[in-house]
Parts: sequence; structure tokens; C-alpha cells
Amino acid sequence: MPVESTVPAGEIERRLTTFQKALGEAEMDGAVIVQSADLYYLTGTTQNAHLVLPTIGEPVLLVRRTVERARIESPLDLIVPMLSLYDLMNVMCERDVRRRVGFELDVLPAARYLRYREILDGIEIGDCSSLLREVRAEKSDWELARIREAAAMVSGVAARVAEVLRPGISEVALAAEIEYWLRRQGHQGILRLRAFNGEVHYGTIVSGPNAAVPGAADAPLVGSGINPYVGKGSGLEEIRPGAPVIIDIVGASHGYVADQTRTFCVGHLDSNYREAYQLSLEIMRRVAGAAAVGVPACDLYELAVELAGEQRDMLANFSRVSFIGHGIGLELDEIPLLAKGHSEPLREGMVVAIEPKFIFPGRGAVGVENSYYLSRGGLEKLTTAPEEICEL
Amino acid sequence: MPVESTVPAGEIERRLTTFQKALGEAEMDGAVIVQSADLYYLTGTTQNAHLVLPTIGEPVLLVRRTVERARIESPLDLIVPMLSLYDLMNVMCERDVRRRVGFELDVLPAARYLRYREILDGIEIGDCSSLLREVRAEKSDWELARIREAAAMVSGVAARVAEVLRPGISEVALAAEIEYWLRRQGHQGILRLRAFNGEVHYGTIVSGPNAAVPGAADAPLVGSGINPYVGKGSGLEEIRPGAPVIIDIVGASHGYVADQTRTFCVGHLDSNYREAYQLSLEIMRRVAGAAAVGVPACDLYELAVELAGEQRDMLANFSRVSFIGHGIGLELDEIPLLAKGHSEPLREGMVVAIEPKFIFPGRGAVGVENSYYLSRGGLEKLTTAPEEICEL
Repeated sequence: MPVESTVPAGEIERRLTTFQKALGEAEMDGAVIVQSADLYYLTGTTQNAHLVLPTIGEPVLLVRRTVERARIESPLDLIVPMLSLYDLMNVMCERDVRRRVGFELDVLPAARYLRYREILDGIEIGDCSSLLREVRAEKSDWELARIREAAAMVSGVAARVAEVLRPGISEVALAAEIEYWLRRQGHQGILRLRAFNGEVHYGTIVSGPNAAVPGAADAPLVGSGINPYVGKGSGLEEIRPGAPVIIDIVGASHGYVADQTRTFCVGHLDSNYREAYQLSLEIMRRVAGAAAVGVPACDLYELAVELAGEQRDMLANFSRVSFIGHGIGLELDEIPLLAKGHSEPLREGMVVAIEPKFIFPGRGAVGVENSYYLSRGGLEKLTTAPEEICEL
Repeated sequence: MPVESTVPAGEIERRLTTFQKALGEAEMDGAVIVQSADLYYLTGTTQNAHLVLPTIGEPVLLVRRTVERARIESPLDLIVPMLSLYDLMNVMCERDVRRRVGFELDVLPAARYLRYREILDGIEIGDCSSLLREVRAEKSDWELARIREAAAMVSGVAARVAEVLRPGISEVALAAEIEYWLRRQGHQGILRLRAFNGEVHYGTIVSGPNAAVPGAADAPLVGSGINPYVGKGSGLEEIRPGAPVIIDIVGASHGYVADQTRTFCVGHLDSNYREAYQLSLEIMRRVAGAAAVGVPACDLYELAVELAGEQRDMLANFSRVSFIGHGIGLELDEIPLLAKGHSEPLREGMVVAIEPKFIFPGRGAVGVENSYYLSRGGLEKLTTAPEEICEL
């Protein structure tokens, strides 16, 4: 049976009001929202729908499929069927959303954009994605509670790895065990990234040389994948004694995610790896300690690079991606990006994953990652698996 | 280590030539390809890249990240780094791709489209997605071999279901068992849909009332999902004796998929369900029997509706989605769509999944699905699990 609204009505109301305020400040007279994560955030449902949100006034959810589920899942009052784009145009005109209107241009397919432009003759189509992403970046207590649930889910992974990791198991077989365990904890399976071509299947479980393989994914460590079509994550190779094993995994609860990385080894990890791991731990802890409301995001990146010192060329966050952490929430690539050039100050309520990782080209990688909540008092750690290297 | 090219050079060459011919017929002087499935099809890699394909002449792959992997994974000769969009413009001009150029407008984000329009001043941007989708619809022997591997993978699922399905297991726990089993067979995990907001996590495992829940996904059966953020597939409810259980699952090999549905039951399925299931079997077999090179896709849909007769309002393909089957390949929603109004004739080499499903509102659903290859001699069945209802 359809699951009733899991996002409380008060949450939705506050989110809509905050976004409306941002639209007003950007001199837009409304927004039209269609992407799943944004729709869920603002309405509580991911049914196939257009949310028409006037900057002043009541939102209307126009639903192609299915209106009955949207009515069960969303606390909005005005939920109506949509038969064609002319219904959209009519509602926009009725609600006075017809001069400058925000669309999610970073994710909206070009063909749909061109079709809207044709139908919405005389309406200026703007981009409201960054406005909405900024609103989404500040998590409420309710959202934080969901992320804590996701964090509790991944915190248990370490114990499971200790049970199943053994010499000779392939990376993909280890991934199968972890994914199975997560799914049995009620993991939702589907995870969303906002980036074009972005996708992730639970996380990145890689070892030895495969952990050092670079690639297209917007992450410090990528891996080969089991074929070039997937192109990232676990490969088919066996995990060898002495090789560091990276378990970078994403828990989820009601759509909200938590991101955690730990390093394991079958047998003893040699001192080069151990030293690099200790440095990644130190960087994570010192960056987390330096994070505070008002601190520019890029300062945390610069601090990480500085702490890496002579090892900075081995710091994947420096040599490959230019970020030390990223926001998380309904998507894995949320604001803020703790990255080079991102001077926006951190705000209360942000949730970030900090993930220093070191690469030994052709040989392996080590690293660590926690998810944190930023309150007035600084960062609070949400992912709680033991942080030391786990040698089995 | 990066996996070497799995798509043979001869395949890539033939695909490029066929697509170039289509571009020429559409009076475009080239295409720029960026989406993962299309890139893999035409180059063998999913690295972050722009493929510049002149209608006449050699393709150039401009790679943002990483050029070393693209060179290992792709047999193309000209693979060069790309630092900015000006590199793209320069290569397009050098290769004389500068009057009317095809982009994948159905999947390209609007913001990127607008940026291309700004940089590629004076170049007319057209849409080449349907041209490429038509090329991709006709599978080669090499592709068919991959789809056969994917089909062999899902054909084994039925035996696994018989081992793990028991009264009281929840849908999501059953899904966990099947997904685990698939992953241990080497399932790649990540599956791709072309549709906006489209995504699937292995398939749709639903039972009893949840199988009858409609929703946003472009499929006859949807299900609730474990929360409204996912919005489709398995729920948290227990599987009850006597309730039909739908196992609609996707195998994969080197990116290529096969789609199969079977119906199970703990205990005895009542005669209404049994009769509907027999009718779904008959529809699948008769539709498959009627499929042939040159037959309009919509005729198969109309035949299915006709065969459903007085039961047609219960046929989810009629009452919910207006299609009886769909093409499969690197994406789950390929051409042809065997749908109302789609009058294009079927062509040799197409691979389709035919999936009649009946809904008992509020109670349950039954259905069946096979994947087929269309040769001169008609449809050949690829998915081979036993087709009778499996009562446990």
C-alpha cells in the first residue's frame, strides 16, 4: 500500500516558506519543480508532478501520475491532475507565476526546457536550482534525525566487514556481502546524485591497485568497476593479504544519506600505508575541528592541503578532485562543497562528509570519512564506527 | 586496474559508421555525445568526455577525466585531454562540425545546453537522440551475446526464489536475497534508464496489495517502495500465503540487460489469479508469435488489448501505461516501445521485453515477461526460467 507522508506537514510548510523567501529575494515570481529529490523535499512525494510555487501564495501540485498517491504522500492542500502542459500554463497564469520563473536548469533535460519555452510564451525562464540547493543545505531537526538513522546504519558496517573479509574474496563478492547486509537493515537501494551522469551503487568498495585507479566519478577514489560501462567501484580482482581495503559506504533513511569510509586489511598493513592513514585521520579531525559557522568552505580545503604537507601530491583530494568534503542530504552531492575557490561561509544546520584519502599510485589507497552536523557549537560527528585501521 | 576495452574495435567502428550515415541523412554535419550509455556505445568508455563525431571523417574523444582510462577502455585513435569548452569548440571547427550539430537533448541538462549555445556561437544545435536511439535499437551479434549472458543470469533467479521465499518474509527482505544472489553472479549493480527521473534498483519485487499500487514509474506494476522518496518497488510488508508475488528482475552483462518477470506464491493461488496469469501467458506468447520484421510496434499493443478482451481494464498495460513491451540494451527503456500510436515497423536485430500484467485493484497482480531477439525468422526467446506459476 502507498506509504503515507513521512515528511511532517510542518516541515514542508517551513521549507516552502524559506524557498519562497529566496525566490522573492532573487526577484522571481515563482518556481516550477519537477526533479525527484527537489519534489520530495518540497512536497513529500516523488510522483510524476509539476510543483507550481508562487513566491506569494499557495503551491499547486499538478500530477501526471498518480494523483491518488500524491494525495496520500503529500500534505499539500492543492493536488490536482495534469493532462497536458497547457494545464501547467493555466495554473501558472492563475497563480500569477508568469513573469520570471525559476526552473531546475541544472537537471532539467534540454528538450523539456525547450518545450516549456515554447508553451510558456512570454514567460522568462530562470534557474532556481542554486536557490533551492541553498535552502536544502540547512537541515532541520527532523532531517538531522533521519541522517542520524542513516549514520547508525553505516556505523554497523565495520563489524560486518570483519565477519566476511577474508583472503581471496573478490571485491565484488565483498561488496555483495555489505550491500546484502545493508539491504537487510532496510536500506532503500536507490541513491541519488544531482550531477549529470552521476550515480552510485551503495558506495565504493575497492582494494589494492584498484583503489588507486582514477576515473570519471567526482570522488577522490574511483576504482575500475566490474566493466567500463559501470566504470567505478569494485572490480573482479581478489583482495590480497597486506592490501588496504577501502569501505566507503552510504546509509539511507527516508531518502536521507550518511557517508562513511573506513580502511581494512587482511593481515598487516605496511608502515607507509599506516602513516598515510594516520595523516588522513589527523586531517579529518583537524578539518572537523576547524569547521564552524561562518568559516569559508575553501578554508577547510586549504587546511587539509596544508596539513598534508609534503604528502600533498598523494592526497587524492588535492591531486584529483580539489575538495576535502561535500554536503549530504537527499542527494550525495549537496551544498556545501568544501573545495578550492568556494568561499561561501558555512551555515548552521549544514551536514558534511569529510573524506581525506591518500593514493599510492599503482599500489593502493587509504582513507577515512565521517559525516558531521554543524551546530553553533561546531561539528558533531554522526558516523561512529571505530576509526582505527581494522586488521583481520 | 582499469578494465581494457570490452567492446571490440570492429563493433565501435560499425556503430560509428551507421550513426554517421544517419547524421548525414538528417542533414547534420556531426554530433557531440556526452551521456554515459551513448558514450559507451560509441566509444567503449564512460569516462567524462565529449565525443565529437563528424558526419564525414574521424571521431575525436575529448576527455576531462581521465584520459589515461579512456585510452585503455576505448579503441578510438584520437583521444585527447579537454581543459575547457573552448577545446571542444576548436576541435569542432577543425573537424568542420560547425553548421548543424546533433546533441542528446533528451538527456542533456538545460544549463549545459545553454552554455554550449553561448560558446558554440553561430552553430545550430539540433537533437540527435532519436537518430542514435534508432541505431542502438538494432543489436549486433556481439551485443546479442551479451544480452544472452544477462538473460542466463536472470533465468537462474526462479530457483533462488524457491529457496528463499517463505511466509512472513518481507518484500524488501526477499528483494535483499535476490539482489544478493544476482550480485554474487557478477551483476554490475548500476542500471540505466534514459527517462528523466528514471531509475531502477535491480527490478520490482512486489506481492499482494503492494503489487497493485500504481505510481510514477513508467511500468505496468510499480509498488510503494519502502518510502515515498524511493516510491517504487518492494515495501516493508510481509508476503502472505495465497498472495501472488511478482519477481520482475533485470540481469546485466557488460552493460547490456535482460528483463524477466515470473509469478510465485506461498501456498495456493486462487482461480481468479490463475486465470489472469494464464491469460497473461497467452498474451505474451501470441504477441511474441505475431512479432516479425516489418510489423508496426503498435499492432502488438493492439493485439494484446484485443486478447485481453473483457479483462482489458485489468490489463495494467492498457489501463496504466499503453504499452505491452519495450526495447532493452544498455538502457532499460530503449526503442522500440510496443505502444499505442507507435506505428514504426519492427526491424531485424531489435531486442524487446514483452510484459503483460493484470491487476486486481487493492488485492494483487500477476504477470509474466520475457526478453526476445527479433531475427528474420521471428522472435527468439532469451529468458528461459520456467513460465508456469511457481507455488511453494
